[in-house]
Amino acid sequence: MTTTRGPVHAAQPDAREDGIRVAVSTVIFSLRRDTGADRARVVLPLVRRTREPYESAWALPGGWLRPDENLDAAASRTLAETTGLAPSFLEQLYAFGDVDRSPSRVVSIVYWALVREEVSSISASTAAAHDDNHDDENVAWFDAITHPPLAFDHDQIVEYALWRLRNKVGYSRIAHGLLPDLFTLADLREVYEAILGRRLDPANFRRQVENSDTLIPTDDYRTGSHRPARLYRYDEAFELAERGPLPH
Amino acid sequence: MTTTRGPVHAAQPDAREDGIRVAVSTVIFSLRRDTGADRARVVLPLVRRTREPYESAWALPGGWLRPDENLDAAASRTLAETTGLAPSFLEQLYAFGDVDRSPSRVVSIVYWALVREEVSSISASTAAAHDDNHDDENVAWFDAITHPPLAFDHDQIVEYALWRLRNKVGYSRIAHGLLPDLFTLADLREVYEAILGRRLDPANFRRQVENSDTLIPTDDYRTGSHRPARLYRYDEAFELAERGPLPH
Repeated sequence: MTTTRGPVHAAQPDAREDGIRVAVSTVIFSLRRDTGADRARVVLPLVRRTREPYESAWALPGGWLRPDENLDAAASRTLAETTGLAPSFLEQLYAFGDVDRSPSRVVSIVYWALVREEVSSISASTAAAHDDNHDDENVAWFDAITHPPLAFDHDQIVEYALWRLRNKVGYSRIAHGLLPDLFTLADLREVYEAILGRRLDPANFRRQVENSDTLIPTDDYRTGSHRPARLYRYDEAFELAERGPLPH
Repeated sequence: MTTTRGPVHAAQPDAREDGIRVAVSTVIFSLRRDTGADRARVVLPLVRRTREPYESAWALPGGWLRPDENLDAAASRTLAETTGLAPSFLEQLYAFGDVDRSPSRVVSIVYWALVREEVSSISASTAAAHDDNHDDENVAWFDAITHPPLAFDHDQIVEYALWRLRNKVGYSRIAHGLLPDLFTLADLREVYEAILGRRLDPANFRRQVENSDTLIPTDDYRTGSHRPARLYRYDEAFELAERGPLPH
């Protein structure tokens, strides 16, 4: 077999010539329970583009990578700029770099993140308060499934992030990233149902969770219109999600 | 809480100013059974650098992303340039982009790949034959654990790729990427042992594999110095590895 072998990291390309730029975008998931609704939904914040290409279309929050900034720092920065908040979970999702994904050549390093519900609600109301630092009309939360068509390949990116979320909920305690420190088993089941998009049998769910040994029952109960429900917390000895030996 | 929100994909950065370049590298794993050795080892090809930085150090095969080339095409190209072969499995691993990972600012999109053993042996002997198209002294296969210290952050990258391989072998049929179409249960166990770095009980292994329903027994047997061993093949109805909705 005849092969040719080019230089490996050989010639330094002229940055003025290659024209490839690096952006960082983040898919930020949270839960929202609408008043009167019987189940929670997965929601994500989107940003309305104010210039071409895709002017006025909704897109994932993001920005250009800065020369003095690590990738995960850029993801945290764009996340804070959009939601004003720190995530409970942040992980690199995938690098998207197809030649035709944008009119110019852009490689987007995409992260995904979870923001706890009560926190994202505060953020949404803060954004609604029209303070000087927010251009409120250009950031809004949408249903993760029924959001409008997005700019670039962002529909595909959101679909992939949802797949990762559904996948990960099956073998990690990632659901905790959408819950407060103390929660009932019904709260936890609601998170699973929102992520998986289907109802789960309460008795089966309780049995599986209790057998998993990742939950610690507390002596506290939530009282209200229903009968008191025991509050649980996650055993912090378990990682939120196994991410391998990378130092993040 | 006061937040500032910068422009989102707003100003187009001047490529002459930002100085961030994109490279693609690939961790290519294969198996090697040394003559007389009692177990197989995971090996990978490395390339000796011929210029600064890290001149004469070993590094992962890779190269600059070309403006007209998709990310996975760049990975396949650098893989073919190094081994002369098509992989049985190729997947994006992670984007590495720390500011200090290289003297200049380089974001490396890293892929990992599997090459079947008999194929990588052919490649290695081809490389050893000193044909005109190969700069043989600058490409060599090394043990994936005991290889020499690598340039840049490539030690960390190889460690992460090995973690992904070990992790994936537990829940997918990725081991098939290192086996020929027909194999014995002892062959399959040898792949698992090489990846996991420990001995597996033959009887337990046989039971687990037979219960997994992913293997199809054939009517063929391998004969030789030992008693005849039945040959199996993987059920092609199972994906080599679940990779979500991405069109790769």
